[in-house]
Order: sequence, then C-alpha cells, then structure tokens
Amino acid sequence: MDRQIKCELHGDMIIAGSDAVSELYDRGFYGRKKDGVLELSLIEGAYLLYREKIQIFSNETTVDFKTFFEIASGRSEDFELRYIVFKDLRERGYYTKMNPIGFRVYPRGGHPGEVPAHIFIYVISERAQLPLKSLIHELNKAVNARKRLILAIVDEESDITFYEIKKIAMMGKSPIEPEEVEVPMVTGLVNDRTIVWDREMSDFLHSSYFFGRKLDESRLQLSLVESGYLLGKQWIRIEHKNVASLDADKFNEYAEGVEPGYMLKYQVYAHLRDNGLVAKTGFKFGTHFRVYKQFKSDTHSEYLVHAVMPDYIFALPELSRAVRIANSVKKRMVFGYADGGVEYVEIGWIRL
Amino acid sequence: MDRQIKCELHGDMIIAGSDAVSELYDRGFYGRKKDGVLELSLIEGAYLLYREKIQIFSNETTVDFKTFFEIASGRSEDFELRYIVFKDLRERGYYTKMNPIGFRVYPRGGHPGEVPAHIFIYVISERAQLPLKSLIHELNKAVNARKRLILAIVDEESDITFYEIKKIAMMGKSPIEPEEVEVPMVTGLVNDRTIVWDREMSDFLHSSYFFGRKLDESRLQLSLVESGYLLGKQWIRIEHKNVASLDADKFNEYAEGVEPGYMLKYQVYAHLRDNGLVAKTGFKFGTHFRVYKQFKSDTHSEYLVHAVMPDYIFALPELSRAVRIANSVKKRMVFGYADGGVEYVEIGWIRL
Repeated sequence: MDRQIKCELHGDMIIAGSDAVSELYDRGFYGRKKDGVLELSLIEGAYLLYREKIQIFSNETTVDFKTFFEIASGRSEDFELRYIVFKDLRERGYYTKMNPIGFRVYPRGGHPGEVPAHIFIYVISERAQLPLKSLIHELNKAVNARKRLILAIVDEESDITFYEIKKIAMMGKSPIEPEEVEVPMVTGLVNDRTIVWDREMSDFLHSSYFFGRKLDESRLQLSLVESGYLLGKQWIRIEHKNVASLDADKFNEYAEGVEPGYMLKYQVYAHLRDNGLVAKTGFKFGTHFRVYKQFKSDTHSEYLVHAVMPDYIFALPELSRAVRIANSVKKRMVFGYADGGVEYVEIGWIRL
Repeated sequence: MDRQIKCELHGDMIIAGSDAVSELYDRGFYGRKKDGVLELSLIEGAYLLYREKIQIFSNETTVDFKTFFEIASGRSEDFELRYIVFKDLRERGYYTKMNPIGFRVYPRGGHPGEVPAHIFIYVISERAQLPLKSLIHELNKAVNARKRLILAIVDEESDITFYEIKKIAMMGKSPIEPEEVEVPMVTGLVNDRTIVWDREMSDFLHSSYFFGRKLDESRLQLSLVESGYLLGKQWIRIEHKNVASLDADKFNEYAEGVEPGYMLKYQVYAHLRDNGLVAKTGFKFGTHFRVYKQFKSDTHSEYLVHAVMPDYIFALPELSRAVRIANSVKKRMVFGYADGGVEYVEIGWIRL
C-alpha cells in the first residue's frame, strides 16, 4: 500500500502539507493549492480516505471513514449525494472541481490546467423540488460560461440519472398562410370540443393544416386550443347555445372553465403554430402536445411539448417520467413556458 | 339509398314504429323492443341519422344531424364522448348496448340474444377526474357479472385509448427467511438513506436479498423503505446523531418528514416483500417501485408498482403516462392501495 498522507480536518476543509501537492494534486488533480499547502474538499477527503490515500486527523486523533462520513454530512449540504456523484465520475475517468451546485467537469482525457471544464453538473436528490426558475438561472450561467448544464439526479437507491438541459428555439416548416379563409365558418361548441359542420371546410382544415379530427366523412371536431386559435385567426366563428358567435374573451373564459390551465396551454399552442409547427394532443404520452416540424402524412412528431407556468416547480419523479416516455418513442422532451413571449427548454436523458 | 325509417324524438329516447324492429333490431341489433315499437337511445339515433338509415321528427318537423347532435348533447351526459366510442366500436364490428357508464359490448362475431356481452366499457373524457374508489366499484360490478372492465378514454382530439382494469394478487418467489439475522447490525442514518458499515452484512443483504446498493466494496446504502423494513424485522438497528438505536415510531416519523408519503409507500413495500416479491425504486420509470417476482442476476422486473391512497383520484393524462411507460419497457403497471390490507389493481393498455 502507498504511504498515506497525513491531513487535518478544519471545518469544511481538509488541509494537507506540501508533500500532498505532488502526490495528490500533480498526480490526481485533487484539491486546491494555496500558500504551499493543499486544501481538499470534504468530498475529496472522503474519497481519498476510502481509497486509503490519506489519513485524516482531527484534534490529534485519526478519523475513520464512518466517523468522517457522519461529520462531513453534517457540515456540507447534500454531502452524501455529491459524494456518490463524485465517486461515479471519478471512477469513470472524469476530473472534477467543486462548484456551488455540484461540479465542474473536465473532458475525459483532459485535466484541470490543461483544458477548460466543459460541463457544469447540478447534483440534486430525487426528492428535491426543482423550480424551473432555478434551472433557467443555472442554465444561463452555464451558457454564459460556455459550459453544458447537466442535472445529476440521485435516486433513493443512489443510482444517478443524467439529464442535459438546453434552451431550444422551436421553428417549423408548416406556416399558416394569412387570410386564406375570408368568411369565418360556423362551428358548434359541444362541451369540450367544437364541430365544423361544413364538409368542404372540414376537409380544408384537416388536410391542409392537420387541424382537428374527422367525426365522420363530412364533419370535423376541433379541440379547445384549436378552436381558440382558429377563432383568433377569424377562420371560424363559434355558435354556442343561443349565442351565434362567441367572441374570443367569452370563448377563453368558457374554455378555462372546462379545462383549467387552458390559457397557459393555448399560449404555447399558438406560439408553436405561429412558428410553423404543427401541434396535436400529446395525451397518449402524458404531455400537452406532440409536435411536428412539418406535417406530411408519413412523418412522426419530433417533440413532446408540455406547457408550464414560469413559476413551475418540477417534482423529479414526474420529470423523469416525461423524459423517459419521450425517449422511448424517440422524441425530444420540451417544456414551454410563457414569460412575456414563450420560451422552451429541452431536457434530455444522456449517458455521461 | 335504403328507405329511411321515420322516428320520433321523445325526451332522451327515439321511438320507431314496428317496421323498425325488423329493419333495425333484427338486422343490426339497434335499440330495445318494447310493446311492439323500437326504442333507440340518442346515441344510436345519431349514428343511424349519420348513416341515413332513419329520419328523426320532433314536433312534426325533421331534425338534421347538426340540430340533433346539439339537442342530444344537452340531454344526455357525455353524449359526444359516447357517440365517438359507439361509432368506433360499431364500425369495428362490435355490437353494443347502453349501460350507465357506457356500454356492454358483445364479442366480435356474436350478437345480443345469441351470446352474452363480455365487456363493460367505461367511457370517460381525458379531462375527467377518476376516483380510484369509483374504478374499484365498477370493477367489482364487472367481476360479479363476469365481464371484463375496459376504460375508454376520449382525448381532446377524440382519439380513444382503451385500458383494461384488473384486480391482481401480487405473489413472488423470493421470501424473506425469518430470523436469519440474530443480532441486528448497526447502520447510520444520513439524511435520506442509511449506510450499513459492516462489510459482511452489506454483502449478505445485497447478494442474498437485493437490499440496497453498494456505496463501495465494503459498505451498503439502504433507502428509507428498506431501512424501515429491515428495522421492523430487527435485522438492523439505526444510529442517528446521538441516538444509538432509533425505534420504529421515531424512524417512521423521521422518514415521513424527509419524504412526505413515506408511510403509504412503506405499507406497499412491506406487503410486497412479505409476499416474496423484490421491490426496488422505480424512479427511472416515474413510479414508486419496480418489482421482481424473483431476484436472479439476469432477470428484469415484471411490474411497476405505484402506491396510492384509497381515496386517490386519477388525473387521466398522468394515468396514461404511467401505463405508457410500463408498456414501453414491457412491464405491467400496478397501483397498490392500502385499505386495511394492501390490494392491487393492474391497468394495462389494450387494443380492442
């Protein structure tokens, strides 16, 4: 066994003498050189203790792994989670440095001082709540530093799942032509859908733009968001009970009553359609929409899009489920949030 | 075109004369014979009107499809949903009769009067809330009548997804041997997991029973439910801060604080383990557990199990997501609910 380097535990740091610089820093890129000594984080300390590379002293007595682990988990937030991720990355050939949300990670084969880190790892427990705002905040920091942002979620059995977070511009190739319909066509509102009664108009909406679903050969059913969108474009007018033509405000109010969250969903739907994408229900995938870049009869949708409020808070099992489904059907999972305009963030499962 | 049979709309029923009995009932099993006339439901009426088999009169004037559809949707709950499902089933060769939740369905090739119905179809909108209690209630009725219960969920674009509901007994082949551990082993509670410090015990728990996950070669991490279960079995004792040995009540209280809903999850976990099944986290699938009938190194888990309260209310997009994931990984989706003992209901996607 190698000679073990003696270190001292000081608060949330471990201090090793100058002999450690050549042994641990130069050969393994552990710690941070400062005034001729080496400062190790608690996580690095635990790992080196497990590897039997160091001995840790506190008040002149050595500290064993169990005791050190218990002390460290009391002094450093999410210590056990970060230890699990650190160990995993290290043993798969990645050098890392600590940062406030987890780690900076260096490309495999590269090391600190030689190449820049290329990834920020955000370590989080499956049980934690993750506000969309925090995620966007960290994503902006990563983008500004030209890093990729990767979420490392540690589950209750200490398995790690990695998700990459990216901003994404949603643009498609099936734009709605303006003013193609001159006289709005009559539709009837029946509970949570509307029906286009005219055969020609049904065919046109369905085959040119993939709106709605045929009730039969001559009639088309539109969903609430489709109805709201076409009403806004003045392609349809909506009859309801004794009202010959609902205005947009009345329709929105009605739709929000039938489907709480309608307006949020509508904003994302309209933004997608306005940008040339074709959005259809994602019910079978448990999301608001499946989205096509271009609609042709033989295409599959490329995205699953879920509309969320800017103050949305992710429950991680739920996030995991959404990404898993998208992955299993070879689609990309995207969350759209309305914040002035509509912005999109893609969350994708990756092997790291 | 066939001669159209004249019918009269009366409230939520359509009455056709005796000529309809031979035309509609004897040839197509529409409606119900009563006192020499034929009574059609509004849904059958709408379908026959669309097929141009009948004319419907109300106050001496004919009613066109649009008007009839609007009238009927005002008079009959979920009319438009049931119409969509009726049309779909009928056009795929199934005869149906109305029942309070949707339809009784006859086997393909068979018809009313010849064979009994074999399925109850429960028609519901994707937007509806479905209480577990209602589902169980309908399931019990179906089981008593020796029918299968199938949920037909109509999404916002009128697409139909069918799920079969079944009670299921969960039994496995990896029982926990009683009193295999005589002296409880020490574990340490670190936030939301415990660590088994002893190498031999770590190996034993992991390789004989697939408890926990190795932290490294000599230490094992246990999840909260695993810890609670092994504590109950007196295989471990749990150290926490200055307490040498947490009792079960204290541990449960702690665990419920770290993970709201712990006790519910624990009940289902313990029931599964007690019945010889091996349950591990289902985090990657967005459920509480993935469950093995028997643990061998090369087996895949057969079930995804999610623990819910007896008063749980399903949101259908969420249900759809859960079943979809299970399907994509070839597992069976099961909900476990604690109601005195623990019972299980399996929900599986089917083609009908």
